[in-house]
Amino acid sequence: MKRVMSENGRLLTLEGWYVYHDFRKIDFPRWKQVSDVERHQALEELFALMNTWEKNEEEKKGSTALFAINGHKADLVFLFLRPTLEELYHIKTTLNKTKLAEFTEQPESYISVVELSNYVNNPDQDPKADPRVRARLYPTLPKTGYMSFYPMNKKRDGEDNWYTLPMEKRRELMKAHGKTGRKYAGKVQQMISGSIGFDDWEWGVTLFAEDPLQFKYLVYEMRFDEVSARYGEFGYFVVGHAVGREELRELFQID
Amino acid sequence: MKRVMSENGRLLTLEGWYVYHDFRKIDFPRWKQVSDVERHQALEELFALMNTWEKNEEEKKGSTALFAINGHKADLVFLFLRPTLEELYHIKTTLNKTKLAEFTEQPESYISVVELSNYVNNPDQDPKADPRVRARLYPTLPKTGYMSFYPMNKKRDGEDNWYTLPMEKRRELMKAHGKTGRKYAGKVQQMISGSIGFDDWEWGVTLFAEDPLQFKYLVYEMRFDEVSARYGEFGYFVVGHAVGREELRELFQID
Amino acid sequence: MKRVMSENGRLLTLEGWYVYHDFRKIDFPRWKQVSDVERHQALEELFALMNTWEKNEEEKKGSTALFAINGHKADLVFLFLRPTLEELYHIKTTLNKTKLAEFTEQPESYISVVELSNYVNNPDQDPKADPRVRARLYPTLPKTGYMSFYPMNKKRDGEDNWYTLPMEKRRELMKAHGKTGRKYAGKVQQMISGSIGFDDWEWGVTLFAEDPLQFKYLVYEMRFDEVSARYGEFGYFVVGHAVGREELRELFQID
Amino acid sequence: MKRVMSENGRLLTLEGWYVYHDFRKIDFPRWKQVSDVERHQALEELFALMNTWEKNEEEKKGSTALFAINGHKADLVFLFLRPTLEELYHIKTTLNKTKLAEFTEQPESYISVVELSNYVNNPDQDPKADPRVRARLYPTLPKTGYMSFYPMNKKRDGEDNWYTLPMEKRRELMKAHGKTGRKYAGKVQQMISGSIGFDDWEWGVTLFAEDPLQFKYLVYEMRFDEVSARYGEFGYFVVGHAVGREELRELFQID
Amino acid sequence: MKRVMSENGRLLTLEGWYVYHDFRKIDFPRWKQVSDVERHQALEELFALMNTWEKNEEEKKGSTALFAINGHKADLVFLFLRPTLEELYHIKTTLNKTKLAEFTEQPESYISVVELSNYVNNPDQDPKADPRVRARLYPTLPKTGYMSFYPMNKKRDGEDNWYTLPMEKRRELMKAHGKTGRKYAGKVQQMISGSIGFDDWEWGVTLFAEDPLQFKYLVYEMRFDEVSARYGEFGYFVVGHAVGREELRELFQID
Repeated sequence: MKRVMSENGRLLTLEGWYVYHDFRKIDFPRWKQVSDVERHQALEELFALMNTWEKNEEEKKGSTALFAINGHKADLVFLFLRPTLEELYHIKTTLNKTKLAEFTEQPESYISVVELSNYVNNPDQDPKADPRVRARLYPTLPKTGYMSFYPMNKKRDGEDNWYTLPMEKRRELMKAHGKTGRKYAGKVQQMISGSIGFDDWEWGVTLFAEDPLQFKYLVYEMRFDEVSARYGEFGYFVVGHAVGREELRELFQID
Repeated sequence: MKRVMSENGRLLTLEGWYVYHDFRKIDFPRWKQVSDVERHQALEELFALMNTWEKNEEEKKGSTALFAINGHKADLVFLFLRPTLEELYHIKTTLNKTKLAEFTEQPESYISVVELSNYVNNPDQDPKADPRVRARLYPTLPKTGYMSFYPMNKKRDGEDNWYTLPMEKRRELMKAHGKTGRKYAGKVQQMISGSIGFDDWEWGVTLFAEDPLQFKYLVYEMRFDEVSARYGEFGYFVVGHAVGREELRELFQID
Repeated sequence: MKRVMSENGRLLTLEGWYVYHDFRKIDFPRWKQVSDVERHQALEELFALMNTWEKNEEEKKGSTALFAINGHKADLVFLFLRPTLEELYHIKTTLNKTKLAEFTEQPESYISVVELSNYVNNPDQDPKADPRVRARLYPTLPKTGYMSFYPMNKKRDGEDNWYTLPMEKRRELMKAHGKTGRKYAGKVQQMISGSIGFDDWEWGVTLFAEDPLQFKYLVYEMRFDEVSARYGEFGYFVVGHAVGREELRELFQID
Repeated sequence: MKRVMSENGRLLTLEGWYVYHDFRKIDFPRWKQVSDVERHQALEELFALMNTWEKNEEEKKGSTALFAINGHKADLVFLFLRPTLEELYHIKTTLNKTKLAEFTEQPESYISVVELSNYVNNPDQDPKADPRVRARLYPTLPKTGYMSFYPMNKKRDGEDNWYTLPMEKRRELMKAHGKTGRKYAGKVQQMISGSIGFDDWEWGVTLFAEDPLQFKYLVYEMRFDEVSARYGEFGYFVVGHAVGREELRELFQID
Repeated sequence: MKRVMSENGRLLTLEGWYVYHDFRKIDFPRWKQVSDVERHQALEELFALMNTWEKNEEEKKGSTALFAINGHKADLVFLFLRPTLEELYHIKTTLNKTKLAEFTEQPESYISVVELSNYVNNPDQDPKADPRVRARLYPTLPKTGYMSFYPMNKKRDGEDNWYTLPMEKRRELMKAHGKTGRKYAGKVQQMISGSIGFDDWEWGVTLFAEDPLQFKYLVYEMRFDEVSARYGEFGYFVVGHAVGREELRELFQID
């Protein structure tokens, strides 16, 4: 863990918790067909799970957050951070067995692991001993504000091939990119998670902000950085706001 | 808000209301199965919502319009403009809980925010103080005529990379493009909305006209502008005409 | 309408009737479940609509044709030509409300408008006054033989960018292409319809012939024309033969 | 039919029977729900159709074969060769009306026509008078061994554009390709069918062999031929083995 | 089988067992609807099949393993290695006829054959006589730890065309790639299986490891090898952990 780069010039990475973005879409026509009692039980079952997730977070064994998603792609996304893929599998199947799952479908998901790259450390120290590093590898997800998520690759397309660039060039481009990111410090919080070998894109980017326009400003400004302009390949984008029990009750309320 | 461009030469943008294109497809076989009374109630429930949307528009807190869509992709599109993403989320879930939603599916949607770019202003003034600017950021959607919608990107493909062009070149290309657009003044009204960080494409383009051939003429002529010819990447296209309560009654009428 | 080209060298086009390709797939397992009487009624309802379409054609207010489609993509395609998009919308929803629609799905459709390009006219004359022009803008669709349909774009891909070619080059390429087409005069009838601003591709091409091999010969030979070889981008292809009431009865007959 | 090439240097082709690849997937959960008697009747109805197809083959009016398909894409593929598209349409709808069709879906299909290209003939002779030519245009499909199917295009991508190559170059590349193919004579039998104007790709390739590894060897070795390496664009691939009545009985047997 | 390369410089391959990746997704809402007894029977039926697969493995006639899959794409993947495609077909249809199959769907699968390439052997020996070769062609799949699977092609895209490289260059690139792979010896076990002529991609890569981060390290590091950076084209990725009867019981347990 202490080398900064591998023999072939690849920058080493640090990994934290595994990440599971679990998108759900609500089937309201079917939800309306069941009784108030059933709907109440289904919601309470979800809230009981949320209790266990909150306890997990309090015990620093993971973090969980729930966001409403705009548009037709999904209605909710659960963000789960846990130490192992098994726990994330268990969470998926537990959710799928709930009463509420009978009234939702899962149109999308993303599997990744929190990643810090370009880490410069003292070869005599364990970087994970640094509390600032630990806070980024094992973050507590925000419970208010907005979230934007998108998966991405580094391009390998003719002249625009990230993986054939010399390491110095990659380092320089990432540095400029980081500078753009830092302009948004205090406005946008970024969680980068690696998914090479786990899911269809190379990275997932999860952004958090109090004002969703900051997502647009940040991603747009970054798109002019050479690293995105020439080497970024982007998947789908979703946006939404944090929801708690109260808004969930309202969302699932049928008059 | 007062700088014309950012440090890296990116033109600054002004943002207005958030935009939600909500496409719906009617399941007539199921709609025919229920009674006249149920169908009447479902339609009245929609009309009651339309009342609240009209009130919202009168109070200048948003704008709403409804268009019939040709072809198999959708039967209707609701256009919602509102100050926040939360309101657009609430509108979606409210629609999804209606009786009518039991007889429709939502094959597509688009999330964006009204955007003015290339704005040249007096650094001592708030551009949003200008009523002409406000009218474009917070527009009242037309209730007659035709609509065409398509999402688009600026290309980043080998030599054709918008985001690596120098700012002066981009400004010049956009200026020529704007000139083409102005030829259609009085014939086609354009609403550009940005969706970077929000949805899968970078912009949504919503056009309004009294004669739908003007969409074809405008988009075709613009395709020869270098900015579209070399740098435009287009998604799906839909076209349709404005519908009011009377045509909705007819549409949902079963003899 | 009288200019041959616009200021930026774009060739002007003439537009005729709007076109709606309405593809349908029959759900035979469900069709077999209902009684002979219901099936008879459903078919008679379709035939009654066909009567109105034939009357529309006799009155020169449009044209309609029906083709059987080979393969799994569809079983039938209705071709509707009408003066307005509203009429095409009304036809779609009327079809969707029929009994027969309960036993079909609509996997695909295409919205366009009949288009003549490269029209050289006498600036003192209205081109639509010419009966040969009118016959092509407002054609009567064939009721026998075979049909092939495909949507297409002109490419904008690196060096192969139609929209950045000088007008003279485009004119010359189209002229050579037209020459290939004319070799098939009397064998293949072409209907080109523009869909920029209306549907996902730029044009729809509908071919009619007595011998379906002529589709293959024509499209293959054209593919070697520079305009197709370098600048053509093709979507899906479907092929089928014209069907009348008698074959429809047979098709929907359950023994 | 007697010219070897057209005026623009396109090699002429000879066409034989139309080809319909009809893929089916079995819905076993629903199949198990019906009684033994119904299942027996459904299977006997298929066998009766197979009788008519065998009679058709005996009368040299077509050929039919049935293969089991590995993987989730399909469970069976019916290969039909017939003189006209109408017969192939009639076969599709006849199959779709059977009892068995209630327990299958059709995830894919392919429409093409058997094609011989690069045919060098004596201008004074009808090539179809040659029995070896007839045997390839109107083949009898094998009833044992394995089948591999894939659709393909010739690329038109920047420098790799088959359709802009001079005819001599194309002839030379195809000759080398043919040489690779001939190395597999006696091991792999190829049926090339053209689908330009009929279906989404330009050609379908159906291979037959006693040892399925020969498919892999042949297609892999051919991929190094310039014609495939630079100009081949491949769709999906499926593989399977021939099945007769006995294996069908076993396949549809529910204990 | 004894030549190292074919006449055109293609490296020869050795093939072992055919491979079937069978992905399944569990429909818990329907699973919960049936009785405990039915659920018990369904699971016991699966366990009985697993017994036969274990017997098959003991008899060295194949190998089978079962992994839980993270995310929405699938819940389980069965890995089957068998001597023939027929056996893999029989396994698919046997599984599809089980009770459990009524509560699962099959969203994906992959058909390939275990492949060793670049094999240097003594022309006087049968390579399959070497026990180390046999162990790799007819492997016993691991029953613990994690699995990552992805299909891939070698690119044929403009300047980046694997199949037009001289054989010496390909050999050199593969050698460097192998060197990266060997750095992970003891950490990641690779099974390469060829699917040219069988399925949609050219190869399937199945990785096994005790620590799933090693998948990320390996695939990321390899991406900088020229063979991947310039010539690799990757499909979807899935990841999961080995499951046995105990975890299956838990997974399918409804409280």
